[in-house]
Amino acid sequence: MTGLVKFAGGFAIAAMIAAMPLVAGAAEDPKDVIDYREHIMKTLDAQTAALGMIVSTQVTDENLVAHTEAIAITAKQALASFKLNVPGGESKPEVWKNWPDFEKRMNEFVEKTDKLAKSAKTGGVPVVMEQMVDALTCKGCHDVYREKK
Amino acid sequence: MTGLVKFAGGFAIAAMIAAMPLVAGAAEDPKDVIDYREHIMKTLDAQTAALGMIVSTQVTDENLVAHTEAIAITAKQALASFKLNVPGGESKPEVWKNWPDFEKRMNEFVEKTDKLAKSAKTGGVPVVMEQMVDALTCKGCHDVYREKK
Repeated sequence: MTGLVKFAGGFAIAAMIAAMPLVAGAAEDPKDVIDYREHIMKTLDAQTAALGMIVSTQVTDENLVAHTEAIAITAKQALASFKLNVPGGESKPEVWKNWPDFEKRMNEFVEKTDKLAKSAKTGGVPVVMEQMVDALTCKGCHDVYREKK
Repeated sequence: MTGLVKFAGGFAIAAMIAAMPLVAGAAEDPKDVIDYREHIMKTLDAQTAALGMIVSTQVTDENLVAHTEAIAITAKQALASFKLNVPGGESKPEVWKNWPDFEKRMNEFVEKTDKLAKSAKTGGVPVVMEQMVDALTCKGCHDVYREKK
């Protein structure tokens, strides 16, 4: 009987874990998770700034595709870093309170930046100019979910 | 004769241009080029820091491959940004004075980070730990080519 109870208990725990939308890291220090997230957001900041300099013709467009690829990859990193479920830093508690909305926005950001990177390869600067305002939704999300400095 | 001289002169100029390792941007403001390069170096800084946090088990390894990919893409961006041939910022003039050495180091950085990204996909954290010291040659280059803060 004890064996069966243990077994059933094991299933229940497995089901609970599978249903959890957010899984905090095993033994992560919250400060580390916040630092990690900030490394990712700084990357997005730097890469979108660099892309902006190309689009505004301040610098050559040689790295156009590379910047859109870096942004698309980092968008995925960002979503994963927020799933670690550690409030703090510049993130408002609303990120986790309104998780379905936040996750929806982040998923759209991932999808649209992925599309932007594909478009950049074939269409170059003109197509990036067309799509980037819709793809780079940074401000919309920051207005709601980031603490004002 | 004048025609021939001009023609020969044209060849000489063409040969000179072909031999130039560095081609400055058409109408770029030097300050813009330096800002642009710094966005790229900040990306490398942030992404290698994030990767370091995974390797030191401070955070989950979910983004392992994504960080190595972002580093590999950004390494290529960096080489292109230095080719714009604008001294200044934190770059010592030696970058352009010793261009063959600098370019060789940057090409190695590009190749090795590309390999690291491929290894991360198949070998995970253990293989990244094995290869990252050799691939992330940041310090070796900074010691020689970056102004001390």
